[in-house]
Amino acid sequence: MTSRSLDALFGLRLFFKAENLQRAGSFKIRGASNVLWSMEDSEAQKGVLTHSSGNFAQGLALAARERGIPAYIVIPENAPSVKIEATRSYGATIRLCAASVAAREQAAEEWQKETGACFVHPYDDPLIIAGQGTAAMEFLEEIPDLDFLIAPVGGGGLCAGTVLAGLAFGSPSLTVLGAEPSGADDAWRSLDQGILLPQENPQTIADGLRTSLGRHPFDVFTRFGTQILRVEEQTIKEAMGLLEERMKLVVEASGAVPLAALRSGHSIPPGAKVGIILSGGNKA
Amino acid sequence: MTSRSLDALFGLRLFFKAENLQRAGSFKIRGASNVLWSMEDSEAQKGVLTHSSGNFAQGLALAARERGIPAYIVIPENAPSVKIEATRSYGATIRLCAASVAAREQAAEEWQKETGACFVHPYDDPLIIAGQGTAAMEFLEEIPDLDFLIAPVGGGGLCAGTVLAGLAFGSPSLTVLGAEPSGADDAWRSLDQGILLPQENPQTIADGLRTSLGRHPFDVFTRFGTQILRVEEQTIKEAMGLLEERMKLVVEASGAVPLAALRSGHSIPPGAKVGIILSGGNKA
Repeated sequence: MTSRSLDALFGLRLFFKAENLQRAGSFKIRGASNVLWSMEDSEAQKGVLTHSSGNFAQGLALAARERGIPAYIVIPENAPSVKIEATRSYGATIRLCAASVAAREQAAEEWQKETGACFVHPYDDPLIIAGQGTAAMEFLEEIPDLDFLIAPVGGGGLCAGTVLAGLAFGSPSLTVLGAEPSGADDAWRSLDQGILLPQENPQTIADGLRTSLGRHPFDVFTRFGTQILRVEEQTIKEAMGLLEERMKLVVEASGAVPLAALRSGHSIPPGAKVGIILSGGNKA
Repeated sequence: MTSRSLDALFGLRLFFKAENLQRAGSFKIRGASNVLWSMEDSEAQKGVLTHSSGNFAQGLALAARERGIPAYIVIPENAPSVKIEATRSYGATIRLCAASVAAREQAAEEWQKETGACFVHPYDDPLIIAGQGTAAMEFLEEIPDLDFLIAPVGGGGLCAGTVLAGLAFGSPSLTVLGAEPSGADDAWRSLDQGILLPQENPQTIADGLRTSLGRHPFDVFTRFGTQILRVEEQTIKEAMGLLEERMKLVVEASGAVPLAALRSGHSIPPGAKVGIILSGGNKA
């Protein structure tokens, strides 16, 4: 999608990949589908299992229903009820647990033993990363001469897939950038210091980006010198407002971070063709 | 656009024409463009003029810019500043007036004398109706076998155009329905009594549908026996919420009225293919 009024406002030629309009409301079904359809029938029939309070729960649940296998999702009991209901509506079996990371992991481990289901990590998995990269692949099929392409960074699966798809399908002059909130800037700090640092005590409305960067995404960013832009909370809110007002799109905070990055410090020259991945639209 | 979750919720096969994503944020540019490109150059060069507090102001302003002629828009001083700014951003010259209908008409008349511009009525004009009908024409080109097609009714330009396009391009079994708020049901009352009744003291959040039905739309509805569905305010709000939550679309209250009509009394059978015109997305 495009918007002449946002082009004028930013002095750029903007192109938006509207993953908020994707099935289950975010890009997450891409990676989940890639994992599930890569499984042998014998392995798949026992089902898949994850713990998630967010979009990956819905994406995995829907992908499992399409593959015709069970999905077991551990969800922290403080997750928004609308997200729990949406996950249930895609046919997943849900088990609630206490809100801590330890409780999530323990509940998932126990349930996995009971069911024999295959644990699927939401982002730190090459098959997940490859699946998320199909958003950028489709983007570059349609707009092959993008100068820049910006994806949000939480666990890093989408952004790492975007980097790899950019190398495979973009023009030689394409630059892929990551964008994350200043209040959850573990990717920026990890790349700055050259070691994978966990995100402790994240402070951001972008709930999908509070998680810690994964090892595989870290390796991709390090190897290809990916630059991460950091954005302030106020610019995230403003970007959400612009997307609503000018493009009539509901985009969740995490999905608005790449547009917000254009209001922060960056070196994109005026008039450049910039691709923005609006990663999701599921609000709490 | 389609939504499997809304299909399941309503027990219908729903198709949405997203005129909220149209240029200038609503269907209004269709009729405005048809009028402007039907004018001779000699007539057009003096420009066009209207009075509007809403979407027609923006649609006419943008259509005039594309035709390369001046647009003069009288806007009541109590109109939302975001709408005034949007109209100005499309290059129109704006004159503010007092909020009454009499003041609007007087200001427009005086300004027309000064400029020699051509007055364009927002809905009660065959060329406007024909232009608005292109939304349904495109809809039926893509989904030729719709059983029902629902458009909102304010002045009636869009709905009359939809009725005519349905006759020209729809299947013989297509039924076009109008939808309007119970708190501004002049179209329903006019058709019930067989005479054109003005809308006095409208009570609805659907600001685009507070206006009185036009003579030409009334004649179209009467001639072809168009049925009007009436919806309550609460269902309009619920429909806006569903469009946001399930389809990630920002739709203004007037644009959500046709979906709301599916929650009101109607005789659409389960499983029918129903087209819904989401007429606009410009919120105050």
